[in-house]
Amino acid sequence: MSTSGDWLCFDWTRGERTGVPEAVLAAGKSAGQLITIGRAAIERRAPVLFTRVDAPCAEALVKALGDRIHMDATARTATIGRECRRPELDGQVAVVGAGSSDLPVALEAVRTLEHLGVEDVALIMDVGVAGLWRLLERVDALRTRRIVIAVAGMEGALFSVVAGLVPGLVIAVPTSVGYGVCAGGQVALNSALAACAPGVVAVNIDNGFGAACAAIKALNPLVKGKSTCS
Amino acid sequence: MSTSGDWLCFDWTRGERTGVPEAVLAAGKSAGQLITIGRAAIERRAPVLFTRVDAPCAEALVKALGDRIHMDATARTATIGRECRRPELDGQVAVVGAGSSDLPVALEAVRTLEHLGVEDVALIMDVGVAGLWRLLERVDALRTRRIVIAVAGMEGALFSVVAGLVPGLVIAVPTSVGYGVCAGGQVALNSALAACAPGVVAVNIDNGFGAACAAIKALNPLVKGKSTCS
Amino acid sequence: MSTSGDWLCFDWTRGERTGVPEAVLAAGKSAGQLITIGRAAIERRAPVLFTRVDAPCAEALVKALGDRIHMDATARTATIGRECRRPELDGQVAVVGAGSSDLPVALEAVRTLEHLGVEDVALIMDVGVAGLWRLLERVDALRTRRIVIAVAGMEGALFSVVAGLVPGLVIAVPTSVGYGVCAGGQVALNSALAACAPGVVAVNIDNGFGAACAAIKALNPLVKGKSTCS
Amino acid sequence: MSTSGDWLCFDWTRGERTGVPEAVLAAGKSAGQLITIGRAAIERRAPVLFTRVDAPCAEALVKALGDRIHMDATARTATIGRECRRPELDGQVAVVGAGSSDLPVALEAVRTLEHLGVEDVALIMDVGVAGLWRLLERVDALRTRRIVIAVAGMEGALFSVVAGLVPGLVIAVPTSVGYGVCAGGQVALNSALAACAPGVVAVNIDNGFGAACAAIKALNPLVKGKSTCS
Amino acid sequence: MSTSGDWLCFDWTRGERTGVPEAVLAAGKSAGQLITIGRAAIERRAPVLFTRVDAPCAEALVKALGDRIHMDATARTATIGRECRRPELDGQVAVVGAGSSDLPVALEAVRTLEHLGVEDVALIMDVGVAGLWRLLERVDALRTRRIVIAVAGMEGALFSVVAGLVPGLVIAVPTSVGYGVCAGGQVALNSALAACAPGVVAVNIDNGFGAACAAIKALNPLVKGKSTCS
Amino acid sequence: MSTSGDWLCFDWTRGERTGVPEAVLAAGKSAGQLITIGRAAIERRAPVLFTRVDAPCAEALVKALGDRIHMDATARTATIGRECRRPELDGQVAVVGAGSSDLPVALEAVRTLEHLGVEDVALIMDVGVAGLWRLLERVDALRTRRIVIAVAGMEGALFSVVAGLVPGLVIAVPTSVGYGVCAGGQVALNSALAACAPGVVAVNIDNGFGAACAAIKALNPLVKGKSTCS
Amino acid sequence: MSTSGDWLCFDWTRGERTGVPEAVLAAGKSAGQLITIGRAAIERRAPVLFTRVDAPCAEALVKALGDRIHMDATARTATIGRECRRPELDGQVAVVGAGSSDLPVALEAVRTLEHLGVEDVALIMDVGVAGLWRLLERVDALRTRRIVIAVAGMEGALFSVVAGLVPGLVIAVPTSVGYGVCAGGQVALNSALAACAPGVVAVNIDNGFGAACAAIKALNPLVKGKSTCS
Amino acid sequence: MSTSGDWLCFDWTRGERTGVPEAVLAAGKSAGQLITIGRAAIERRAPVLFTRVDAPCAEALVKALGDRIHMDATARTATIGRECRRPELDGQVAVVGAGSSDLPVALEAVRTLEHLGVEDVALIMDVGVAGLWRLLERVDALRTRRIVIAVAGMEGALFSVVAGLVPGLVIAVPTSVGYGVCAGGQVALNSALAACAPGVVAVNIDNGFGAACAAIKALNPLVKGKSTCS
Repeated sequence: MSTSGDWLCFDWTRGERTGVPEAVLAAGKSAGQLITIGRAAIERRAPVLFTRVDAPCAEALVKALGDRIHMDATARTATIGRECRRPELDGQVAVVGAGSSDLPVALEAVRTLEHLGVEDVALIMDVGVAGLWRLLERVDALRTRRIVIAVAGMEGALFSVVAGLVPGLVIAVPTSVGYGVCAGGQVALNSALAACAPGVVAVNIDNGFGAACAAIKALNPLVKGKSTCS
Repeated sequence: MSTSGDWLCFDWTRGERTGVPEAVLAAGKSAGQLITIGRAAIERRAPVLFTRVDAPCAEALVKALGDRIHMDATARTATIGRECRRPELDGQVAVVGAGSSDLPVALEAVRTLEHLGVEDVALIMDVGVAGLWRLLERVDALRTRRIVIAVAGMEGALFSVVAGLVPGLVIAVPTSVGYGVCAGGQVALNSALAACAPGVVAVNIDNGFGAACAAIKALNPLVKGKSTCS
Repeated sequence: MSTSGDWLCFDWTRGERTGVPEAVLAAGKSAGQLITIGRAAIERRAPVLFTRVDAPCAEALVKALGDRIHMDATARTATIGRECRRPELDGQVAVVGAGSSDLPVALEAVRTLEHLGVEDVALIMDVGVAGLWRLLERVDALRTRRIVIAVAGMEGALFSVVAGLVPGLVIAVPTSVGYGVCAGGQVALNSALAACAPGVVAVNIDNGFGAACAAIKALNPLVKGKSTCS
Repeated sequence: MSTSGDWLCFDWTRGERTGVPEAVLAAGKSAGQLITIGRAAIERRAPVLFTRVDAPCAEALVKALGDRIHMDATARTATIGRECRRPELDGQVAVVGAGSSDLPVALEAVRTLEHLGVEDVALIMDVGVAGLWRLLERVDALRTRRIVIAVAGMEGALFSVVAGLVPGLVIAVPTSVGYGVCAGGQVALNSALAACAPGVVAVNIDNGFGAACAAIKALNPLVKGKSTCS
Repeated sequence: MSTSGDWLCFDWTRGERTGVPEAVLAAGKSAGQLITIGRAAIERRAPVLFTRVDAPCAEALVKALGDRIHMDATARTATIGRECRRPELDGQVAVVGAGSSDLPVALEAVRTLEHLGVEDVALIMDVGVAGLWRLLERVDALRTRRIVIAVAGMEGALFSVVAGLVPGLVIAVPTSVGYGVCAGGQVALNSALAACAPGVVAVNIDNGFGAACAAIKALNPLVKGKSTCS
Repeated sequence: MSTSGDWLCFDWTRGERTGVPEAVLAAGKSAGQLITIGRAAIERRAPVLFTRVDAPCAEALVKALGDRIHMDATARTATIGRECRRPELDGQVAVVGAGSSDLPVALEAVRTLEHLGVEDVALIMDVGVAGLWRLLERVDALRTRRIVIAVAGMEGALFSVVAGLVPGLVIAVPTSVGYGVCAGGQVALNSALAACAPGVVAVNIDNGFGAACAAIKALNPLVKGKSTCS
Repeated sequence: MSTSGDWLCFDWTRGERTGVPEAVLAAGKSAGQLITIGRAAIERRAPVLFTRVDAPCAEALVKALGDRIHMDATARTATIGRECRRPELDGQVAVVGAGSSDLPVALEAVRTLEHLGVEDVALIMDVGVAGLWRLLERVDALRTRRIVIAVAGMEGALFSVVAGLVPGLVIAVPTSVGYGVCAGGQVALNSALAACAPGVVAVNIDNGFGAACAAIKALNPLVKGKSTCS
Repeated sequence: MSTSGDWLCFDWTRGERTGVPEAVLAAGKSAGQLITIGRAAIERRAPVLFTRVDAPCAEALVKALGDRIHMDATARTATIGRECRRPELDGQVAVVGAGSSDLPVALEAVRTLEHLGVEDVALIMDVGVAGLWRLLERVDALRTRRIVIAVAGMEGALFSVVAGLVPGLVIAVPTSVGYGVCAGGQVALNSALAACAPGVVAVNIDNGFGAACAAIKALNPLVKGKSTCS
């Protein structure tokens, strides 16, 4: 039995089929696996996004792939190429973060949107509800965006408050920021799911990437591709 | 100190402000409280939706409010009036249910959409992945909808499978259907949040109402109203 | 071995020692036990408060003790007599509730305060953050109270928002209102503990009684009694 | 899109509004972020408290800010300046710790009180209930304090015992001291919430800072400032 | 395949082998099963103890077995016959209960001890630590017992306090008394396991029977029987 | 929108495709839904098995379908017809139960096997490890079976012990028998998963049906049918 | 008291008794313990498998035992010798993995099968359901295997989908791949247990070894050995 | 406020009062704190036991205290002096361990017993139930011991099996050995609490020290000392 090379079966048609192409969750993969995937993308001339790239993997990727790959250390993302621009989605999304510790997750959402061809994403940080004036000052700006990605850890009160003030869809990204009962982000996640303001939706803890994908699926006119199965 | 009447402060302007009006979660409220709210709505000529109305409360509401209120026993909803029609949203939403036990939650989503003015919601039930052909036969129909509300209990595998096949936004509604480890719906919820297909978003367990609200917020052009705070 | 009567050892000196007398948690006790305690209090001419009295126990208590006992069905409290008035604490406490389903717990706090001699408690209900204007309209009134007991279920965002707006001590009472992830009140409790606004303190889920006791201990000049142990 | 500098929106008016100024939770922030906040405080001549400063961040802060910042390695706090003295609160607070492993959390409470202008805080350590005489010897001293901050890990029995002996408000700070079932502090937290002695309130696990803030809010005459929102 | 009668394989030799005979946990068994077991015991002239007998099963047992079976409604026990007296164990065990709601569990321990031949069990109820004087008054009496079975719900602080005061072995029986975080008894159980006083051992929640068995095994000289396996 | 009849999409080809036909989990379905499914099966002349049929549903099914349906009240199963006999599987499976409270789950496994055409299933009950001799006496019989379905609640020690003694595949069915920490069956489930004897596999709590299906899939020569998808 | 050497009591007869010999879980053991076990095996000329061998232990083992031991760094296995070939089991097992991060666990299953004498194991990686076509292309191949070991982390939807398509027994191996709610693998495990497709069985998280053992026990004709106890 | 030295209030009289002297849990304390306690003990000529001493602290203790302190690296204990011999307890205790990974916890129990004056402790390792013959061979030896401390991780089946075979009191010490569902030891703990054999008692996970203390309290004639409180 041989296993070399057999572990990879990339879903290159996912973008055509679902509107969002496959990306690579670097956490849990070896540097060797990441480099193999990166090389396959380069060879195929396909753009690809890596998320949750820690420092050692980032270094290995850059060493192997050179300037073909671009890192954002704070967002922990790496990108090869970029998807086609979607100018019709520009300016429709805001990313709001409760505290400065939420910055990496918020930036992951921004970088994902950019990689998928969306520009003019508003990034509004450090507007947690403990100082409510900070958010209220931004409400008029937020009300013009069709999607508001709200990023918060600790008790996640931001999700309900924002959703009670704006007409756009609020996509909650709970973060693992905090300690004690909120360690790991479960409290913020549950706050999003239990939000008293109707229509809040949630993604997994720290999943800025997923929120960006959902934003694009919510905004996008339907793709013309077809299910590979039917 | 008097408390009679003081316990109610309905947010009548929520629809204008956020695109989705306040509804009433009947569970946890006394029949007397529900009737008071119903009468206030009738007096104000405002439509209102009650969710999770159990049989005794339904009977009390009908007895008190007569034909001003309409019940759906399976969906456990009660409605007074209806919001303005939004024909531009007709035919854009599908509700997909994994098993026949998920019907009440799926119907709650359908009834909410109808109450909020949306028609032509596709309801596709009993297409759980154990018999995958049932879902694959419907994929082409699902691919024409901009929002797919997926309703599933037990292990919630439906969420990932649907999201890998359609371009629309998949809003997962985990249900409390099942026993043992899946009692209460937490497994289905976590499956939605951990879905390997990107862009799945989740609402609370059994929350068909919330999924319908999110669908409308995702589809709706921004409302012209303003935040009551600013 | 005889056990009749031996199961009761009431802490009659607790008020003198700690500023708050012993009360009786009815849940978990038999009607017979509750009546025995009630009779002991009447015989001793000592006021006593019963909390979480369900309907059958309430009926049994009234049948046994007649008009010596007073019930509040919504608050689920029963009282025999009343502690001395503490006029210096009048008007210092507000009880704020997020939704109308939180009324029983909020009223338990109010009834406890009244039983312990405190009047002019502000009760402000149905000001959940989904309609933030409802709370903001009341902020000036809340800012004059030294203690704000905040009562909320679901995601408990009210705790952080109130604590960011008022100078008084916010005592959070999470409630078991909600379903799915918030069933049982754990999410609201954790939101209180993880609140991003500093200085929020929490009591057990649905524990309006405990919040009222804490309010009195926070406000009260030290009692002159002594520890029974030293 | 530029993000440099945009991640910070400090709530400088929080003290005026709520009686307790914003502090900085260092855990989860980068050294660069902490230094930026420190410099902003120095420039504004505003006192600021950092909590949970680990050794590498402490070193970076001292290197960048020199003697403008003061560290307490055991309490893991760093301070720039100090709030105005509040002599009317001197001598009103005691901090009681169950075991010597609870010292860092207890000291965080003490340092917070000092930074906020309060002196003469009694610190009584290593009086866990396994050797009850240690606590009973101190009861008379504790009974003269209006606030008792009780700090305990493991089973947290200290909270109930202290609250049954003293008239002041007991603010429980559960700690993450212990292993096995008590790893993480959840048992001590739940013991505080479930305390059989009425009127105990709790803050998050290891949150000595929050307990100190609550103590000040409980003791403080109302501040004259106003809500920034209204 | 026939299953009638085949479901029972009583371990009649357990007492000889382990010092404690098999008893019957009624909860989860049908009335028919209980009666079958009772009849087998009567036929065999073997004493047997049923625990957790609810009212309908008690009624069915009495109806079927008449005065051969003896019920204790508070302890929820039923007994047929009694094991041989063990006078050498008389007066060596105390059962201490924190609150009057703990009485059923405490009585289950007492009834088990009596059924197994032990008399002069001290039952001391309602000595929770919120009123510590109640326990301290009894310490001298408790110090003469080689085993102290401590029964407590809520936060279970009694376990640590007792264990710090007496030389006997403290067997903690957590109870499901309480609400909110302590619903189900897990907090009291964890408090027993995390007790800061060394040497506390715990049995399952509400398991007064198991504590009594452990007491007998701790006190008993080794039985002369042999393992059925070897 | 019409929903009548649309909620059912039975997977009649599952048996051909996977070796085990679709069955109906009655819990969570209305009596009306169950009757509709039963009638569809009768009309189609297809055998069908219902599991977890409570008493009211059983009564409704019998009333509607008469002697076409057969109930087993202890096993809580109902059957219409029966699958073809599979004599090559006779005598290859044993079902072992730890205690008499596990009987309903054990019988669900037996009835499922019988419905699916398997006879001569050994049912060995009440052989929990507290009286190990009961199991050791049966080991030789168990060693002749290729599949041993082990059914146990509480601590589930039976799974490891059996698996260390027999060569057949041990399929563990944890049950919800027990109270306190083992309420709900999670402890028994985890014991199966953590078994120190290698090769134990587990199904969901109380899922006797699933264990029987797995037994058949493990024993069965591959079916000749084909995937409906490919 | 001497303890040297006394800590080891290897179950050398397990293979004869149960069909699967004892293996060594390296995690939690010291390098010294592993070497002692390895030397005992070599001396006894008995094959032995070590699982979960981390890098330092691997290095120590190789240094001590030289070429008598063989490592697979990705699978984290070490082997001394090999069990007898079982050609009748060749080609009957497939191992299917959802993502490339699941490779180490999938390989642990393959290496275990090989060590136990089984060849021609199909290893099919990276066929997660987000790109369903990848799995559907392999269904015909999978349908020829009597056992399908499915390895998946995150939401574990693969288990249900595979089980609905193939006639062989599906043994689910949940992995700890993922973050947020799926950290640790509990979601994937619960998805396996709650699978809507009947007959899925599960082993512990990341337990590729256990799945391989179960496969062999399911396929193997009964061993002729005997229980050591009877 | 000065805190130097104030953090220590050792309970030197605990042994006289409860039969077991205070010991020091090194985990969570700084090396400085440990050395201070060690010096106090030496100065007072009091024996003292440190548990859970990791390698750096061990090195610091030896460097500071020289040959006054004795380390056992496997048991992670350090001792200064030794309590008086209690020859009447010699030979009454056995420590049984399921697997070789449980050795450190089992040795902690042995070292604690020795430090407290007990000799001739039987240590029987690696007798997990997967190879039941290993335990059965030792049953006769175990049946002569009045206390059996059983140490097991994973599923903890050893507790029930041993308790069903021996007349002595079984004190279960669950260990954190294992991975997946048994990571952290909670499964083994719950198995002990849910044991189907009556009379098993449990201590905290990995708490060999506590089990040894309980053994001594169970065996010891009552101490003549008195409660410090009464």
